[in-house]
Amino acid sequence: MPNLPFQGIIPPLVTPLADQDLLDVAGLERLIEHVLAGGVQGLFLLGTTGEGPSLSHKVKRELVGQATRIVRGRAPILVGVSDTSPAESLALARDACELGAEAVVLSPPYYFPMSQADLVRYVSEFAEQSPLPVMLYNLPSHTKTAFTLESVRQLIHEAPNVVGIKDSSGQMLYFQQLLVLAQERPGFTVLMGPEELLAPAVLMGGHGGVCGGANLLPALYTDLYEAAVTGDLREVHRLQQQVLRFSSKLYDGGHSPTGYLTGLKTALSFAGLCKARLAEPLFQMSTSRQARLAQHLRDLGVELAPHPV
Amino acid sequence: MPNLPFQGIIPPLVTPLADQDLLDVAGLERLIEHVLAGGVQGLFLLGTTGEGPSLSHKVKRELVGQATRIVRGRAPILVGVSDTSPAESLALARDACELGAEAVVLSPPYYFPMSQADLVRYVSEFAEQSPLPVMLYNLPSHTKTAFTLESVRQLIHEAPNVVGIKDSSGQMLYFQQLLVLAQERPGFTVLMGPEELLAPAVLMGGHGGVCGGANLLPALYTDLYEAAVTGDLREVHRLQQQVLRFSSKLYDGGHSPTGYLTGLKTALSFAGLCKARLAEPLFQMSTSRQARLAQHLRDLGVELAPHPV
Amino acid sequence: MPNLPFQGIIPPLVTPLADQDLLDVAGLERLIEHVLAGGVQGLFLLGTTGEGPSLSHKVKRELVGQATRIVRGRAPILVGVSDTSPAESLALARDACELGAEAVVLSPPYYFPMSQADLVRYVSEFAEQSPLPVMLYNLPSHTKTAFTLESVRQLIHEAPNVVGIKDSSGQMLYFQQLLVLAQERPGFTVLMGPEELLAPAVLMGGHGGVCGGANLLPALYTDLYEAAVTGDLREVHRLQQQVLRFSSKLYDGGHSPTGYLTGLKTALSFAGLCKARLAEPLFQMSTSRQARLAQHLRDLGVELAPHPV
Amino acid sequence: MPNLPFQGIIPPLVTPLADQDLLDVAGLERLIEHVLAGGVQGLFLLGTTGEGPSLSHKVKRELVGQATRIVRGRAPILVGVSDTSPAESLALARDACELGAEAVVLSPPYYFPMSQADLVRYVSEFAEQSPLPVMLYNLPSHTKTAFTLESVRQLIHEAPNVVGIKDSSGQMLYFQQLLVLAQERPGFTVLMGPEELLAPAVLMGGHGGVCGGANLLPALYTDLYEAAVTGDLREVHRLQQQVLRFSSKLYDGGHSPTGYLTGLKTALSFAGLCKARLAEPLFQMSTSRQARLAQHLRDLGVELAPHPV
Repeated sequence: MPNLPFQGIIPPLVTPLADQDLLDVAGLERLIEHVLAGGVQGLFLLGTTGEGPSLSHKVKRELVGQATRIVRGRAPILVGVSDTSPAESLALARDACELGAEAVVLSPPYYFPMSQADLVRYVSEFAEQSPLPVMLYNLPSHTKTAFTLESVRQLIHEAPNVVGIKDSSGQMLYFQQLLVLAQERPGFTVLMGPEELLAPAVLMGGHGGVCGGANLLPALYTDLYEAAVTGDLREVHRLQQQVLRFSSKLYDGGHSPTGYLTGLKTALSFAGLCKARLAEPLFQMSTSRQARLAQHLRDLGVELAPHPV
Repeated sequence: MPNLPFQGIIPPLVTPLADQDLLDVAGLERLIEHVLAGGVQGLFLLGTTGEGPSLSHKVKRELVGQATRIVRGRAPILVGVSDTSPAESLALARDACELGAEAVVLSPPYYFPMSQADLVRYVSEFAEQSPLPVMLYNLPSHTKTAFTLESVRQLIHEAPNVVGIKDSSGQMLYFQQLLVLAQERPGFTVLMGPEELLAPAVLMGGHGGVCGGANLLPALYTDLYEAAVTGDLREVHRLQQQVLRFSSKLYDGGHSPTGYLTGLKTALSFAGLCKARLAEPLFQMSTSRQARLAQHLRDLGVELAPHPV
Repeated sequence: MPNLPFQGIIPPLVTPLADQDLLDVAGLERLIEHVLAGGVQGLFLLGTTGEGPSLSHKVKRELVGQATRIVRGRAPILVGVSDTSPAESLALARDACELGAEAVVLSPPYYFPMSQADLVRYVSEFAEQSPLPVMLYNLPSHTKTAFTLESVRQLIHEAPNVVGIKDSSGQMLYFQQLLVLAQERPGFTVLMGPEELLAPAVLMGGHGGVCGGANLLPALYTDLYEAAVTGDLREVHRLQQQVLRFSSKLYDGGHSPTGYLTGLKTALSFAGLCKARLAEPLFQMSTSRQARLAQHLRDLGVELAPHPV
Repeated sequence: MPNLPFQGIIPPLVTPLADQDLLDVAGLERLIEHVLAGGVQGLFLLGTTGEGPSLSHKVKRELVGQATRIVRGRAPILVGVSDTSPAESLALARDACELGAEAVVLSPPYYFPMSQADLVRYVSEFAEQSPLPVMLYNLPSHTKTAFTLESVRQLIHEAPNVVGIKDSSGQMLYFQQLLVLAQERPGFTVLMGPEELLAPAVLMGGHGGVCGGANLLPALYTDLYEAAVTGDLREVHRLQQQVLRFSSKLYDGGHSPTGYLTGLKTALSFAGLCKARLAEPLFQMSTSRQARLAQHLRDLGVELAPHPV
């Protein structure tokens, strides 16, 4: 395993909200301390799990400022700057740099389906202008356009400020082909998105994972990462059973992003970490589903707070 | 045919650009005078053809201001306000109202795939807060989430500020089912998106079309609309042959949004109306394709300017 | 409207079954007399609605034999011969010819996704060997591979035994482009698949429709076809309301093929025409849904038999 | 690792053809001896790689007969019996039993999209009537309908003659969830389809793989399987590099089934094992692509025969 700046478990941090378009700063503090205590090796703000695209520009900037203040350099901070407007993406990248973040994360613009030629040109120009290193974000279920292997190869060779890729496609073949490609530039990082694929990804040589569940159970994912890096298959199988049980219960019968986000934020609230409120256009789960989720969490051995936050 | 505020041909206006994130104001003036002279019954700004999602908030507001100034009340102006962030959508709706627009157009937020329950709630709350009437925009190829018939029915009955729907799904069955639904509220408008389906849509009772090609050839579409409203099938067939030939040549071998937009903007430039520049992340077509397009336009009898703008 | 061998309403005949893999011959006789009395201009056996792919080779041949015996030349018979094995398709085409059918209908083989080059070559070779004229069948929802316009153009020019196409894609743009293509060979027939699109298709110049609902209500579709051919828009709108109401009720909340087939066969049984039994792997609808369907049919004014067949 | 009847590497055997619908029996003998010598633990006939759906019933039966004759009990034979007609599937299962095969492999019928309720009922009834144990085949890219986890659970509990599943969805999350499910019935086998996912599948506890490439290079896959079972990560990484390089070259720019099959059959011909001819509706690759493939094979160190078979 090479020594990379962004390897290991880097949770896509949930954005705690006190009200529509208003940060829950106290929740953010508790959440950050919780994941750092669990051994994570970085924080990814304003990703899909962070509901970045749903937030106003004002709240995005405030979140980055508060997070850098709270973290105080204890772990690198990556900031999602994907937008459909390149001007807005670049403005956020500049703010992230000023506020002390270490890198930005960029997906294809997600309104227009794009040609790969346009995509490579767009990303190259963005990377040249970005004051921070750029991690690619491959998530075709949300952005329509995927980074083809050939496009990643071009960016590896021609865009030195592009330093890695987070792959949330869920396609293990593509992920392994990225690992082969990464050998063409020392230090290029390949991270797995879906937490259920962290174990096979790291066993096959992947550099880490951006696990949403690590907001709630950071040590489960950092332990699993260690077991996979060291090739302890028995421990990998034991922890992976927990990961699969946890994710099937937490996300409750469906991997729709809504199910994922409402389940995770509600669980964080039950655990006393931050408020459950989602950013519109998504809305809170029903009371009956909340009760079922609380029971699931108890069954899984998650420690709940006396009262939800 | 009922008398509706937004019926007939309402072109989705191209946004002329002089440079990245800089309006081509002179081009905008020529373009607006051109389409008004062609008999269009409204203008739709900042839609997909207007590259709304690619523009910065600053340029969006400037475009609405310039367009209302140029139009001076000669036709109603509809403003696309779709965004992934509800706060940004609402801010733009308020600006559009202040600047003198007549309505806003709203698609589902296009990052997260959404449940219909969340979608209806989101649109209802938006419509309540919007200072202008809201036209729905159904475009699942770009927004992932479609408005189901049941959701449109709910909004027809429970959201009085929702006044119609523009359907760009390309599905004639769905479009006809919308027409049946529209009978449940007098005055609810149903417009066809794809220009190649304008004729069958109006023959079956549809109220008009948002035809991208009407930027270049407004009279072709207003004539076709009239022929269909009056049931002149022979004239419909004659004009429809032109529409199909035009769209197959202009968009040159592919209905990718990129092909559509680059073809249309380049043609507008050849016709002396406005600059061909696209908003990033899309880029200009190749010189060889430009030459082929110029030849196509001449073959189709489109009058070209001595020099592109 | 040109005079074509296969124009007008050609129902995709349901295959009445007395038991798994056993024909309901009495039902078949009643059904054929019913649709002929309703003025249909041909019969299409062993299509999707006829559950062709689910039947054994033995039953397919028996059906063709019985149908030609019953029809006695009163209308042309088209036989679906699509299969994943070309040898089996050709064997059925030869049997259909011997048994007295007028044409065969061929879709792309539906197991492997295919390249267009392979598809054109396969269809050309098939058409050369087929003893009967070949109608193409475009149904990408079931066959994966669609006929592109370019492939249809090649077949129009190079495969004289290919005499037309039935388009069940539901894409009105594609259908209109087929009509333009058809002008390149006099006599080439273009039929619409989905019955809800019959009216716009014929208004735009289409030659007829393969309407599943015409098994039950043949006169509704032959009347609608006449109204559209003669350009009587008021009558088209009146009948189309019935078609849309009928199809939304009959197929009961879903255009899944299962919903379509179970609804149609059950309705035919209620109308006293033939047994409701489906060919496996599809199964009968639930008793509660049957009761709801019977009520729908009464509401729509369909005359029901005292007892289901 | 439990001791299962069908674990390890079970190649989906290519069907060698001398002409359209005519077996290449000499090629079949060489191919079977080649894979047995490479240590495979079973043979799967008439799968996707075996072009089962393209062959006539006559040739299918002949292939099973010849293969059982050649193998003489040295390895278990599984026979793909998937068809759109249940009567034809069952007839082939009975023939396979008489001819001495050990199991049949069944996918969902692949013409109609199906509900899960119909699918479970269909498979249960089939399994009851099948004289041989049934392995499920999940391949939604070709069959449209996938086996949901809930359906597999029902079959595990209620259909004792269903003994395992081959998953060719390419979804590692689903595959791992199958492994969790399999714990609910001792002896239930879970095999990986795509050969590029064999290594992560076995590292996570999977029971083997149905690797198309094992027709050509059986020892590569049996060695990789052994390395993964014993947890030798260094050897897994080394062999996996070969698998990925091999599959990217052999299938040459595209994982379309056509690309896969033409590449594999042509390579087998170059290696002197069997004829390259494909079953229609697929056709041979171009001569220029053949030359490129020969060069790729030499670069990969594959031993070629003096002349293609």
